[in-house]
Parts: sequence; C-alpha cells; structure tokens
Amino acid sequence: MRILLVGATGKLGTAVHQELVERKHDVVTVSRTGGDLQYDVTDPAQVADLYQTVGQVDAVASAAGSVPWRPLAELTVEDYQAAVTGKVLSQVALVKEGLSFVTGSFTLITGVLAREPVVTGAAAALANGAVEAFVRAAAIEITPLRINAVSPTVFTEALDDYGAFFPGMKPVPLADVAQAYVRSIEGRQTGQVYEL
Amino acid sequence: MRILLVGATGKLGTAVHQELVERKHDVVTVSRTGGDLQYDVTDPAQVADLYQTVGQVDAVASAAGSVPWRPLAELTVEDYQAAVTGKVLSQVALVKEGLSFVTGSFTLITGVLAREPVVTGAAAALANGAVEAFVRAAAIEITPLRINAVSPTVFTEALDDYGAFFPGMKPVPLADVAQAYVRSIEGRQTGQVYEL
Repeated sequence: MRILLVGATGKLGTAVHQELVERKHDVVTVSRTGGDLQYDVTDPAQVADLYQTVGQVDAVASAAGSVPWRPLAELTVEDYQAAVTGKVLSQVALVKEGLSFVTGSFTLITGVLAREPVVTGAAAALANGAVEAFVRAAAIEITPLRINAVSPTVFTEALDDYGAFFPGMKPVPLADVAQAYVRSIEGRQTGQVYEL
Repeated sequence: MRILLVGATGKLGTAVHQELVERKHDVVTVSRTGGDLQYDVTDPAQVADLYQTVGQVDAVASAAGSVPWRPLAELTVEDYQAAVTGKVLSQVALVKEGLSFVTGSFTLITGVLAREPVVTGAAAALANGAVEAFVRAAAIEITPLRINAVSPTVFTEALDDYGAFFPGMKPVPLADVAQAYVRSIEGRQTGQVYEL
C-alpha cells in the first residue's frame, strides 16, 4: 500500500516507519523538519497542501501530536488550547482534508491518559479523550473509509524520560505499538481504539 | 450548600436548578442572558470575573455547552474549534479559575456521544470525550476538591427536537439527569463519569 506517515521522525514514527517498510509498503514520510516532506500539520492550510502534493494514498498513519505537560494548577487555558491544536485539530484536519485523497484508512495516535490519568497530564488527557471520541464518531460517517486510534501507555524506550510520570504502569515496546498501526491499516476494523 | 449553576436557563439547567432548590441549596444561577448573573463562560476573562463577583461557593454545577451538529463531511476545522471553545475550554476555565473559590466540587456536563456516536455528532463527540478525560485527570490533582461529569443520552423532554438523531437509543428524563448532579454534589465521589 501507499501510506502517508505523519510525525515520521519521532520515536514512535520511526518505529512505525520501520515496520511498514519491512512489510513492503510504500511509505511517504512527513514531519516538521525531516522525512520526505516537511509540513506542520497543526496548520490546516498546510494539511490541505500536503494532500495536494502527495495525491492519492491508501492509508494515513499519524504519529504526530505534542501537548504541554504541567501540574494542573499551572496549566492555563492557552495550554489546553495548545493541546487541542497540537494533537486534536491537527489529526482531525488530516481526516477532514484527506477524505478525497485516502482510499482506505486513517490511523490516529492518542494515549493511555484518556482512560488512566497521571499527574501533570490533564491537557494530554483532554486531547486524547477528544481524539478517541472523534475516531468513534467519524467511523460511522466516513465508510467505506475506515478510522482507528492507537492508544499506548508509556513506551519502554521512553522510560528514561517519562517513566517517573507513570509509576507502576507497565510500559509497551514501540514494536508492539507499531503492530497496532499494522492492525488498523491492513485489517478491516473501524472505530476502534487499540489500547496498549 | 451554596452552589453556582452555570447554564441555568436551558432545559437541563432549569431541571437541575429546580432539584437543587427543592433540596434547600442556595443556588446562584448564571447564563448568557438570564439567571441571577449574566456571563458568557466561553470567555475565560468573564469566568474569572464571575468568580470575583460570586466569591466562595461549595459547588459549581455546569449545564452549559454548545456544539455544532453537522454531517462530518461538512464540519470544518472551525466547527471543531467552536465545539472545543463552547463546551470544553469553557468548562475547563470554570475549574481552573474556580480552584481558589470552590470548597467542594465541580460537576461538568458531557454526553453519550463520547461513547456512542450518532450521525452529525462528530464535533459534539470530540468535545464530550475531551471533557470526560479532563475530569478523570483533574480529579487526581485537585483533591480535596472533587470533580465529576454527567454524561446523559438524549433527554426524554427533547425527543421532539433531537429524537431523530438517536434512533433506538433510550432517552433519559431530565429528572434523572438532575439526580446525577445531586449525586456528584452531595456525594463524595470524584473522577467519575455518570453515564445515563
């Protein structure tokens, strides 16, 4: 399949890229500063441009989303808006603008905080909850196109940086998370949130 | 208890108001154009003003939130932003700004679309999912203050207007929804989403 991978140069994007290439997919990688194409998907106009440039693809996989982490007492309304812009509206725009370019599926990234909160993660939780509900809702309106979310806990490979935020929570290896993208892209399910 | 009720003049707000008064609470009602005080809580500056005016309260109950309903293919990124502004950031601001004025609990409004999508409800779903995840996350950081969400399906009293959007889904009487507010305000639970 021809697959557009957004957020392709981060820890997760790199793992997903590797796995998709291994499975003989033709992957077009996008990120802000690296990859085949440089676009900032938090700007809806750039998302539209991106599709014009790339043209038809079988699947879109998103591993892109940045949100502020801060104690709730310090999070401002602007921080919550930044989480919405950085992880919610960006991925919504990938779906919205992609409807006429994508023939198969969308796979978006969320995260465990949607269901299991941790301290300093309120803005991230809000963003993840928004995307997961959007995925369930979009699924019933975009058929025959499909859409799923991948919702991982902390990555095993990120424990050094983030482990302290997830006490007692079992990490997930990036290789397993990449498999959830495969499941969404090559399978036929829609409206699912793959929790791992 | 002294309770600040926001969105007090809508169908839901009126039912909640009635029940809280019946239970001998001292209720300060807020809405855009009616109630004891007129404020637009989608403007964070007005939320801050509101608390300065009202001062200390035992509980905040929100029945306020407006979101665009439109087929997914017609929903623009601006519509999703409107849903976030109208139902998510407004309620987040009520919590954020209320931290120094509220001594007991916050009760926010979400809705069934967070878990069960219906056609034309994608922006509403996104907003509800965001608020529910925020409530779970905020709960662990604002103790001893408490926070819960009330997440009802279509109201029995709104079937004439909205019934067609919820085929085969059992409606809930406003009186039952009002009881969920009572449960949140007078009980001791926190981080809960009351689905009804």
